[in-house]
Amino acid sequence: MKKIIGILGGMGPAATVDAMEKIIENTPATCDQEHIPVIAVSFPDIPDRTTGIISGGESPLNKMLAALKILEEAGAQCIIMPCNTAHYWYDELRASTKIHFLNMIEVTCNKIVDEGIHHVAILATTGTIKAGLYQERLEKEGVNFVVPDDVQQGVIMESILAYKSGDGERAYQLMESVISLMKNVGVEKFIMGCTEIPIILSSDGDKGRYIDATDELVKKAVSWCYSYESFLS
Amino acid sequence: MKKIIGILGGMGPAATVDAMEKIIENTPATCDQEHIPVIAVSFPDIPDRTTGIISGGESPLNKMLAALKILEEAGAQCIIMPCNTAHYWYDELRASTKIHFLNMIEVTCNKIVDEGIHHVAILATTGTIKAGLYQERLEKEGVNFVVPDDVQQGVIMESILAYKSGDGERAYQLMESVISLMKNVGVEKFIMGCTEIPIILSSDGDKGRYIDATDELVKKAVSWCYSYESFLS
Repeated sequence: MKKIIGILGGMGPAATVDAMEKIIENTPATCDQEHIPVIAVSFPDIPDRTTGIISGGESPLNKMLAALKILEEAGAQCIIMPCNTAHYWYDELRASTKIHFLNMIEVTCNKIVDEGIHHVAILATTGTIKAGLYQERLEKEGVNFVVPDDVQQGVIMESILAYKSGDGERAYQLMESVISLMKNVGVEKFIMGCTEIPIILSSDGDKGRYIDATDELVKKAVSWCYSYESFLS
Repeated sequence: MKKIIGILGGMGPAATVDAMEKIIENTPATCDQEHIPVIAVSFPDIPDRTTGIISGGESPLNKMLAALKILEEAGAQCIIMPCNTAHYWYDELRASTKIHFLNMIEVTCNKIVDEGIHHVAILATTGTIKAGLYQERLEKEGVNFVVPDDVQQGVIMESILAYKSGDGERAYQLMESVISLMKNVGVEKFIMGCTEIPIILSSDGDKGRYIDATDELVKKAVSWCYSYESFLS
């Protein structure tokens, strides 16, 4: 049997579905049996990550640890967590398990460095921005970045919450309005640093201007599964 | 915490993703935390169901039982299995667990009866057709049905396999060609009795002519979760 990808998900549920869809798209399979096995624990009642970071809301850590434990016992062999903001607790989660656990912020920043991109804009939740999850790594790597100003960041967060509340059209309008304003600051690419953003912008024709963190994470997980397989064969 | 839906999936992987997407769409939620928790075990290496039924291929039962066991231990409380053909083994799976386990063939046939539909066509894998999974129940309920002739059935199976091999466009053309031919036999609705079919036909504008078995199964599961919740509150 192929290696099993475990998804610590539900943050939000649509982002988990998006990650699963991307696993399928990134697997060169000609029949069901050639696809990669996946166990997804999608627990949307994990407390809100941004609230936990910026305003002392209930920490999501315990529920994330419980989901991780389920994945571990179910036999998952490579964990992915399709929620950028949740990576604020990555070190504690990573330390609690022996399973290979990919870090989507690291994977995405490595991609930016590998592609020689020098100027990026970070689109993410207010939690991810305030915690500096992307900024810290990009700074270390010498990549120039801009973050939205406070008003723009408020609109991005409103867009993400609109999507989570079921209003995809409003989410799209709000997100595009900020991207239009930020186009002029000379960035090469926008990091889609919240897993709702690639879904909100799914109808955006200009995919080339984005770095989709979910897609990078999934590609890394798929390639891990294959490298393991060829290593054994 | 809300009741957890467990998905015995991977047959195929895209059908599991489709079911998860439909759970989200059918849940009236205004934020992540209002969504229903889901554990999906998507094991695409479960042996092919149609081959198992019609030509003595390896039985998928043992691997399905293993996936069911994982769901049980992980805490799933209502099992759905988004693969019509796999319901050939439903009774054995059902007997092996104490968890509530919805039967998608039964749910779909109940919907047809409840809506007072009298003439349907069954679009499904050759395994599902040969096993008579839908025919048996529809006959009991006095619903008239037609199945594709052997040539048409061959084209439907080719369409399903084309989709599973990654060729969605060819799958769509093949499926539509049979539906066009069958339109003239006076049926009221077509049962999408294979979980790949709603994905293959996702761009078909005339949703009204189909009964989507995945959608019916998911609606039943969501309503089970809510009825349980209101029963407790």
